[in-house]
Amino acid sequence: MKQIELMKELHEVSDKKIIMLVMDGLGGIQNEKGLTELEAARTPNMDTLSKESILGLSSPIAPGITPGSGPGHLGLFGYDPLEYQIGRGVLEALGIGLSLKSTCLAARGNFCSIDPATGAITDRRAGRIPTEKCAELVEKLSVIRIEGVDITVRPVKDYRFVLILDAPGLADGLTETDPQRVGAKPLKVEPLRPEAKKSADLFNQWLQQAFEILKPEHPANGCTLRGIAKDPGLPGYAQIYGLKSCAIATYPMYKGLARLVGMDVLDAGDTIASEVQTLKKNWEKYDFFFFHVKKTDSAGEDGNFDAKVKVIEETDAIIPDIMALKPDVVIITGDHSTPSAMKSHSWHELPVLLYAKKNLRKDAVASFGETACILGGLGHIKHVDLMPLAMAHADKLTKYGA
Amino acid sequence: MKQIELMKELHEVSDKKIIMLVMDGLGGIQNEKGLTELEAARTPNMDTLSKESILGLSSPIAPGITPGSGPGHLGLFGYDPLEYQIGRGVLEALGIGLSLKSTCLAARGNFCSIDPATGAITDRRAGRIPTEKCAELVEKLSVIRIEGVDITVRPVKDYRFVLILDAPGLADGLTETDPQRVGAKPLKVEPLRPEAKKSADLFNQWLQQAFEILKPEHPANGCTLRGIAKDPGLPGYAQIYGLKSCAIATYPMYKGLARLVGMDVLDAGDTIASEVQTLKKNWEKYDFFFFHVKKTDSAGEDGNFDAKVKVIEETDAIIPDIMALKPDVVIITGDHSTPSAMKSHSWHELPVLLYAKKNLRKDAVASFGETACILGGLGHIKHVDLMPLAMAHADKLTKYGA
Repeated sequence: MKQIELMKELHEVSDKKIIMLVMDGLGGIQNEKGLTELEAARTPNMDTLSKESILGLSSPIAPGITPGSGPGHLGLFGYDPLEYQIGRGVLEALGIGLSLKSTCLAARGNFCSIDPATGAITDRRAGRIPTEKCAELVEKLSVIRIEGVDITVRPVKDYRFVLILDAPGLADGLTETDPQRVGAKPLKVEPLRPEAKKSADLFNQWLQQAFEILKPEHPANGCTLRGIAKDPGLPGYAQIYGLKSCAIATYPMYKGLARLVGMDVLDAGDTIASEVQTLKKNWEKYDFFFFHVKKTDSAGEDGNFDAKVKVIEETDAIIPDIMALKPDVVIITGDHSTPSAMKSHSWHELPVLLYAKKNLRKDAVASFGETACILGGLGHIKHVDLMPLAMAHADKLTKYGA
Repeated sequence: MKQIELMKELHEVSDKKIIMLVMDGLGGIQNEKGLTELEAARTPNMDTLSKESILGLSSPIAPGITPGSGPGHLGLFGYDPLEYQIGRGVLEALGIGLSLKSTCLAARGNFCSIDPATGAITDRRAGRIPTEKCAELVEKLSVIRIEGVDITVRPVKDYRFVLILDAPGLADGLTETDPQRVGAKPLKVEPLRPEAKKSADLFNQWLQQAFEILKPEHPANGCTLRGIAKDPGLPGYAQIYGLKSCAIATYPMYKGLARLVGMDVLDAGDTIASEVQTLKKNWEKYDFFFFHVKKTDSAGEDGNFDAKVKVIEETDAIIPDIMALKPDVVIITGDHSTPSAMKSHSWHELPVLLYAKKNLRKDAVASFGETACILGGLGHIKHVDLMPLAMAHADKLTKYGA
């Protein structure tokens, strides 16, 4: 039996409360002093909490696999990221705060440069045009009309945009138009199954009009579409876990991911402080709180070790506020590692702290850090294991089998 | 390739001997002194043995999942408990020492209270009538006759009984009749597949007669049937492992589980001492010994920390007797944790000790306890991993692939 089916079958509804505190990109690798960002940070509150917790290391997907934000969070939420996938188009739409109806197909668009003589792509990213230029081109593309289709096109960043078609009977199962190399012409959208033929035709009609409009432009006189996908229709938190769940996050992408799994997305402001206020204000209304801190990842992506340390310390300072609410279970971890030495997401395991008010088998780990967690009682787990562990420690799972 | 297929393909028959010593419910959580039951127990023999062993922690099913006795033992025996399942009716029958022919369907029965006016259930457990009353009602139900069907009905405990129908052509895939809430009427047995239609009809005929007989009773004037199932027909130990295997256990449930996987069930008396005598007497006849100690679990379920400590110490005292037989491999663990602080089965990992006379890669762990096992050389494994490890260390598995 698969984990999600097992959770559906075994969960019991109760008023016990779980907080999952996710510091995006938390995991790091050691600096010249032999310390990761988390280890270099002064985290007296998390260290104290670790003495009342069980710790370990968790792999977001599988050893060696670096996740994007989508799979990283699916794992945290208990959906096997190798089984459940979110299309690139859907993620881009979520990332700029759009939500998708079940009738929508979303595509990630890239502006590109085309040789007018041959029609072949000469630059797949159109010289990485600035976002302002992207917005200007998207404005021009927004005049495209197709009968019976509701069309949304929005700039994202640099040469990237999002295209959403909404019409009855749209189906996924469509190829991408980026040939993945210069010197080749953009491809047509092809249906991978008969039900998707109409959808392919509509995207091709849109592309034809778009190429007409972009013809006089330079360097972005063409575009490609990738990852054309629907909202994956994931079974939600209420159904799987019997949880009344909410998301406290400051960035659209994470709000969107939480919405995909049926969480209520709360208005949490822009800062960790406003997120804590949101948590306190909504404490009575929910029994699962996804609390997302973004700036650990941003600092890691910038290669700024000290800035990442600072965000971790800022997060440590809210632990007393969280514990004052007397949660039954608290998990502290990240969706993936973003070592500032790498300036990118990575495959490295995440340190995990699991605090439970009751029924906890403690270990001897007395501080929260990657090296200390090697000796933790949780051992080496995977992100998908976290929700069952949280549910068990919150006394929300009944016995499997007689 | 699945593990069981792998074992079938790779096993080699030899006279090397394996003992699996299962202390039911062994795992615990720390008391106020920071010790689990196993850590609080004086276990000089297991501690000494741990220096000649490799240790670790094992999850019965998966992180966070609490197993019943059936799945816990299936894992120990090397059957993935999420794939192989034993119906509740079968387990109840095994639990009172009945064995099932392949033509039988077994159901767990619950006496309940019915409102004579509406037919709705007013108490799903009939006020938890005592076992004597249950036996008296079962006696009355034993007059029920259905042509061509061999019917067995037996009391279990309190409001619970077992019903077994035996007839040619019975098939599983049947719904339960307990509506799972008061205020609703008992349901009919429905077939979930066409082959099960006859079986559903027969159970419904039995229920009709039972309700007639129970009508004048109070408070148990009705009953429901749950978990109607067949012996799962598991491939046996001889076939999978090439082992001549036996079970040394004092309780019917565990004898029954061992019988399901093809073990010979030995007459082992009622005490750990008589179990040891049984082991010695049968040492030459078998090459796999499942040795089950029940009272660790009973003490845990009673919430009696000290009693559980005492059973562990009593078990430690038989280790010299076991080692005097010069077994090739000894595994010491439990089927699941039963922390006395929880008074119930739990999801916590089990400490595991694996001793082998030869070819062992030792670790540095020098005592047998949950905290010490965190640092064991086995790391964190699952119960299904134990049989392959036992087989390998007993030199009973050949190479996989060229």
